Amino acid sequence: MSFMDKLTRASKQSKSLVCVGLDTDQEKLPAHLAGSDDSFVAFNKGIIQATSDLVCAYKPNSAFYEALGSKGIDMLIETCDAVPDTVPVILDVKRGDIGNTAVKYADYSYDIVGADAVTVNPYMGFDAVKPFLRDGKCVFLLCLTSNPSSTDFQFTGDDDNPLFMTVAKKAAEWSKEGEIGLVVGATQPEHMSRIRDIVGDLPFLIPGIGAQGGDIDAVIQHCGGKAGNSVINSSRGILYASSGEDYADAARESLLTLRDAINARRQDS
Amino acid sequence: MSFMDKLTRASKQSKSLVCVGLDTDQEKLPAHLAGSDDSFVAFNKGIIQATSDLVCAYKPNSAFYEALGSKGIDMLIETCDAVPDTVPVILDVKRGDIGNTAVKYADYSYDIVGADAVTVNPYMGFDAVKPFLRDGKCVFLLCLTSNPSSTDFQFTGDDDNPLFMTVAKKAAEWSKEGEIGLVVGATQPEHMSRIRDIVGDLPFLIPGIGAQGGDIDAVIQHCGGKAGNSVINSSRGILYASSGEDYADAARESLLTLRDAINARRQDS
Repeated sequence: MSFMDKLTRASKQSKSLVCVGLDTDQEKLPAHLAGSDDSFVAFNKGIIQATSDLVCAYKPNSAFYEALGSKGIDMLIETCDAVPDTVPVILDVKRGDIGNTAVKYADYSYDIVGADAVTVNPYMGFDAVKPFLRDGKCVFLLCLTSNPSSTDFQFTGDDDNPLFMTVAKKAAEWSKEGEIGLVVGATQPEHMSRIRDIVGDLPFLIPGIGAQGGDIDAVIQHCGGKAGNSVINSSRGILYASSGEDYADAARESLLTLRDAINARRQDS
Repeated sequence: MSFMDKLTRASKQSKSLVCVGLDTDQEKLPAHLAGSDDSFVAFNKGIIQATSDLVCAYKPNSAFYEALGSKGIDMLIETCDAVPDTVPVILDVKRGDIGNTAVKYADYSYDIVGADAVTVNPYMGFDAVKPFLRDGKCVFLLCLTSNPSSTDFQFTGDDDNPLFMTVAKKAAEWSKEGEIGLVVGATQPEHMSRIRDIVGDLPFLIPGIGAQGGDIDAVIQHCGGKAGNSVINSSRGILYASSGEDYADAARESLLTLRDAINARRQDS
């Protein structure tokens, strides 16, 4: 099955455009789970069990596991194993390297961790993307990010043709050779439509809702907002909705609220 | 001690601008070391023991270890531990993410692996760089890379101001807040001088000599070529100089030849 089919099915089944970011931070675990490695994974499993019928995807952030050393990699693998097979896993690695190095990063992401998709940095061009294009897998290219210093480089070039638009055009071209999506931050909705016009229905992975200040109304208006073309990520607002023993129930409540707020503005549901 | 001081001392002590890239590939180990994890690390230790008096730095490529899963991370740590304290370790991770994620990647690179410096992708701007700027540590920003598809984005903008020159200008600016270097590929020496003119004596990490076709004469002419400002990487040509039991001796011979070929063209030695 293609990644797009898997994503679209999961999104329709859950009636949800929401992706939960598994940026689990050992320092933020509820008090009753603090202090042991087993409880780190138990926390993730609690979140997944409480939310998997309400999400279109999960997005574990590799950095949070790598920072724990080798045991962190095992914890990442165990976390991804806990995701139901019907729900795609987008591994947020933001790698970008070439040739035999990119092959190794693809091996890590797909074979070791078991992800269905990855985030990739476009700076080095197609050489850094191609090794990730495997059957049933998808590359989400960084295009326009949600952070303040995205303006340092992503807007270079002229107004009609800033770097992020050049990336969007290349993404459309490269999508003939494999499954490509784009990372488009929720904090810059005024540019989302421009990117959407270039890339048709390629999926957007949209970070920046919530903690980073992205506005749901504006995002839904500009991103396309259909099952399979829009994946709206939320991490901290769901993971840490409660710091008590009810963290999983609180995560589900928070997710439901977000899902329904998004659905109320969708045109396809 | 600053990273620059450590690099300069190691480079003067070894009379070498050469950095050995530890892109160790389990499939390319000599036959007598094939098949076990211990021998993977033994191979690296053999290379390090045979070469550490002739290099200015080592550059392990994180991808090659990550592809082995959690045990690979332990092998990377053990490899870096085998490098003498006087020789800097540049961890080639090419990460690029923001805020609390970048902090986690810095924790991985510096605290877990024990690196002195990292490679970082500039696409997301200064937000992705700042968390790596710690005392005694250095960030090598991707500027102009050695691969064919570097032209996809790095030359966008006008001829006087392509993206890689914008990155060089920002690197010069950011170097006021911490130690910054640049990755400048050996395959594009005609642009090296332009970057050097912008960034003064910031260190260049130069991949692409050897297997990728970079020309030593042209590189030395344009890179600056002094201890502390030029780090010329070679990986496969040294690691796999022999596939026999003499691999470490052969690595040393290959490295000596490259070091001396470079030194014959230097103006500071």
